[in-house]
Amino acid sequence: MRTPDSLEELIQAFRCLPGVGPKSATRMAYHLLQRDHAGATRLASALGEALGRIRHCARCNTFTESEVCGICASPRRDPSILCVVETPADLLVMEQTQSYGGLYFVLMGRLSPLDGIGPREIHLDRLLKRATDGLVKEVILATNFTVEGEATAHYVSEMLAGKGIRVSRIARGLPVGGEIEHVDAGTLAQALIERRPA
Amino acid sequence: MRTPDSLEELIQAFRCLPGVGPKSATRMAYHLLQRDHAGATRLASALGEALGRIRHCARCNTFTESEVCGICASPRRDPSILCVVETPADLLVMEQTQSYGGLYFVLMGRLSPLDGIGPREIHLDRLLKRATDGLVKEVILATNFTVEGEATAHYVSEMLAGKGIRVSRIARGLPVGGEIEHVDAGTLAQALIERRPA
Repeated sequence: MRTPDSLEELIQAFRCLPGVGPKSATRMAYHLLQRDHAGATRLASALGEALGRIRHCARCNTFTESEVCGICASPRRDPSILCVVETPADLLVMEQTQSYGGLYFVLMGRLSPLDGIGPREIHLDRLLKRATDGLVKEVILATNFTVEGEATAHYVSEMLAGKGIRVSRIARGLPVGGEIEHVDAGTLAQALIERRPA
Repeated sequence: MRTPDSLEELIQAFRCLPGVGPKSATRMAYHLLQRDHAGATRLASALGEALGRIRHCARCNTFTESEVCGICASPRRDPSILCVVETPADLLVMEQTQSYGGLYFVLMGRLSPLDGIGPREIHLDRLLKRATDGLVKEVILATNFTVEGEATAHYVSEMLAGKGIRVSRIARGLPVGGEIEHVDAGTLAQALIERRPA
């Protein structure tokens, strides 16, 4: 073996990152050692810091450094609407729309029985307790429109049925600025089905 | 700001990696925190280990954990041929061909005056001393066929002219299995110029 052990281990360690195969991992390791020792040091310590300090919000389950995250702690958010998302990244995108003023529940995943991810793993017991606390009037399901995201939305909607809460799903349809000519048939079909009064 | 500080810092730290923009960096940070704490711990410690243990081979300048790398220390390598490459990654690819039995010199870069990388930065003084040690009979220039790689090859070739050493450049031409119809004009033109007796 020609690659020094600690370099080989660094390359292997980079492979835990999403979308990083053997070639990218090698490039990353070489880049840091050749040209960016400061960056490598910073990355190592940022990893340690984040691992030590980040935990899950006691109310919405997103990443936070405190007991309760900034959104859950804010008095300006409407506690009667609860938006269910798969990941903290999805929450971030929702916030960037600046058109949602309610609270969140972050599943930290989606139902995927084959991968051993069932209702418990995505904290549906906590979601049920939260949704039926008396304050929540509507639950908006904002899971992905993938097979697993749809199954998760369906499961949650069944779970909340008959509990006196309005359960809704974000709309499918054409993207803003989208042209009919270029949209896929499935999306267009859904946009037709889910048409609304003009 | 909604993203916790230590998470934001982790995202920023990932951006020192080549080819990683804000989106990938965010995805990497979330992935590790959501699903792979073990991977994150491993990466942090691998970074520390590699930074602490990897240094440059005293002879060929590549990455190693010892004073002299495995290739330079091997008695089976031919010390009369010296192959000049830009990076340790290039050295690795050369080794994978299993068709080179000589030694190496790794520049750790290429001439790039605009970026402040001159002959000193790519250790050409050490290369000169090494190439003229009396053992070396041929220097093979295996820098990239980019503008900077070509300039570097040209500079080294001038530097070694008249020193009684054979200086050669790896060949340009069609890739093995390459079809003339699909090769770019520049490569095909070079393949014509550098044609050899069949």
